[in-house]
Amino acid sequence: MTGAPIFPTRRLRTTPFMDRVVENGVSAFTIYNHMFLPVVYNSLEEDAAHLKQYAQIWDVSAERQVQLHGPDARKLAVMMSARDLTNAQPGRCYYAPITNKDGKFINDPVALCLANDLFWFSVADSDLIHWAAGLATGLGLDVQVSEPDVSPLAIQGPMAEDLMADVFGESIRDIKFFRFAQYEFMGRKLNIARSGWSKQGGFEIYLDDFSLGNDLWDAIWAKGAPYNLRAGCPNLIERVEGGLLSLGTDMTSDDTPLNAGLEKFISLDSGHDFIGKDALLAQRDAGGYARLKGLKISGDAAQPVSNPVDCFINGEKVGFITTAVYSPDFKCNLAFAMLDVAAQENGTTVLVTLDNVQREAVVCDIPFLRE
Amino acid sequence: MTGAPIFPTRRLRTTPFMDRVVENGVSAFTIYNHMFLPVVYNSLEEDAAHLKQYAQIWDVSAERQVQLHGPDARKLAVMMSARDLTNAQPGRCYYAPITNKDGKFINDPVALCLANDLFWFSVADSDLIHWAAGLATGLGLDVQVSEPDVSPLAIQGPMAEDLMADVFGESIRDIKFFRFAQYEFMGRKLNIARSGWSKQGGFEIYLDDFSLGNDLWDAIWAKGAPYNLRAGCPNLIERVEGGLLSLGTDMTSDDTPLNAGLEKFISLDSGHDFIGKDALLAQRDAGGYARLKGLKISGDAAQPVSNPVDCFINGEKVGFITTAVYSPDFKCNLAFAMLDVAAQENGTTVLVTLDNVQREAVVCDIPFLRE
Repeated sequence: MTGAPIFPTRRLRTTPFMDRVVENGVSAFTIYNHMFLPVVYNSLEEDAAHLKQYAQIWDVSAERQVQLHGPDARKLAVMMSARDLTNAQPGRCYYAPITNKDGKFINDPVALCLANDLFWFSVADSDLIHWAAGLATGLGLDVQVSEPDVSPLAIQGPMAEDLMADVFGESIRDIKFFRFAQYEFMGRKLNIARSGWSKQGGFEIYLDDFSLGNDLWDAIWAKGAPYNLRAGCPNLIERVEGGLLSLGTDMTSDDTPLNAGLEKFISLDSGHDFIGKDALLAQRDAGGYARLKGLKISGDAAQPVSNPVDCFINGEKVGFITTAVYSPDFKCNLAFAMLDVAAQENGTTVLVTLDNVQREAVVCDIPFLRE
Repeated sequence: MTGAPIFPTRRLRTTPFMDRVVENGVSAFTIYNHMFLPVVYNSLEEDAAHLKQYAQIWDVSAERQVQLHGPDARKLAVMMSARDLTNAQPGRCYYAPITNKDGKFINDPVALCLANDLFWFSVADSDLIHWAAGLATGLGLDVQVSEPDVSPLAIQGPMAEDLMADVFGESIRDIKFFRFAQYEFMGRKLNIARSGWSKQGGFEIYLDDFSLGNDLWDAIWAKGAPYNLRAGCPNLIERVEGGLLSLGTDMTSDDTPLNAGLEKFISLDSGHDFIGKDALLAQRDAGGYARLKGLKISGDAAQPVSNPVDCFINGEKVGFITTAVYSPDFKCNLAFAMLDVAAQENGTTVLVTLDNVQREAVVCDIPFLRE
């Protein structure tokens, strides 16, 4: 695009941890849910390599929470989520694609069940709050829909657990993946989940008081030296290697969870009813739809793409790349691509042009497997 | 904040005019409705001075359209809008605050009535589409809610009309303020409105084919020399001088149209019913609420603020600045501030600190009047 900077304004919200983010040398941001989200510190490559060895502290405040609270909270959550939340248990997290009546993405949050009448949706980059509030208003449900003062701080990497045990106590090790429990910090009880937007393991701390941002960061930082703790952020290389999809990039409001290959996270074959189910069943029955696949791409390291890049077989367009990045570990360029049926079989070769060089790309599953 | 750049990704959408925007030397962007929006070319001061004399061409694609189409389109539009759209006429635009059931802002779009069963809401920076779709789904309305491929290009400034007449013909002069008509361009019929996010006059061209971006820009550019045409964008100085409010900055989802001083754009005293009306009537009856006011601030030119700045009287906080910028024409810093009752009277002096200097600020009406 261009190196032009972002012009600061109140509309692009700051985070409780921004002082520390800047002090630690953030070098690029994105805007996510109307808020600054760090995306690079040293370089994509250095950040990724560090993340895979040590512990990192991430300002992911931009993962905002949409709170459903009240007698009809569960009813609304169940209706909204393609993942069956009928029996969602307090203390558990659920990756929950949210679709409109056409089965297309509204959001793909992680849902946290805090109590039988209290849910948080930790949202990707779209205003899920308006969808939830619109439904609640239209249906006359008895539920309060709000965005609470909650800003997640993530600790990620293979040394995250040891660090977190030093800060919050040994019991933190007992939290299983996609479960959460409450821990005391400065008189508040913070929800801490074993979760996060990397495949390196770690935790997300749901800070519920903006004014404590520096205190929370500093308390963790003070214990960080043995774990080579650094400021970090969701990393493009690591997320692509691990097969983590980004709404708006890899799938958009034009796509369904079937296009994104998320069959196992949606409940089409149970009695669960949700908005978009009929459309998704019809799409599945009809078949022949585009699917997100992996690509391993030949040639030198290419720059990440910021716009879709077409894929061809015999001169005919068969889809497009949504994300591409060079992986030092895989020693090739990796990409996600939304591909037509003609190109979905693993091992198919398509042609793509990255950095003005035409390259061969071989179709594979997501996540990528090391050979 | 920091000068760190934005990292490009498909999720932050490009526009049909981006090639020309970059060629013309854009120097800062914002992200608005998940899309790049230019906000500075040369400098805020130079851009503003040029805008007030000549003609500028603005990429305002980020003003996305939420389309309501179908038998219940008008019913939904009327229900959503605090401005009474019951008798909205095809060919007319209406500034239409949209509130939730608590009377708080969802968005404040310009509504365009295209036909009795077809409305566009040209939206500020929030996903109004999800609110509209949530209501339609919850209420079971017979209406399609979508975001069409429509990207506005604005021509603004005192010479905009002459330029537009050269490009589209003399009849463009007959379009009255906040009306629109269709004009042919490369085989398409484009809606062109006399509107735009400045007080200098001009037009917005609703391009409905992404692939024609360069063609449309170039066709106008080719006629631009007599009008000293330059690439421009919504300008912070000019919008503050003119009293144009920005959702997310000057008022947020915590505020109502009454807080924002928009009484004349909402229909509280007619038979018009809309979502949020009861809450707004209750707020008005109770009184004593914070209101957005103007401030004229003493001292040297200060940097624009990116976070709220508190306002004090006798050491007590009485509100906060939402936007501040130095105006070369007014020869002082101007600001919008959300002020408590204690500070709302014109002529009240409050203390604020900008650029680490404490300054006196005098409360006045919006828009600012030249003395």
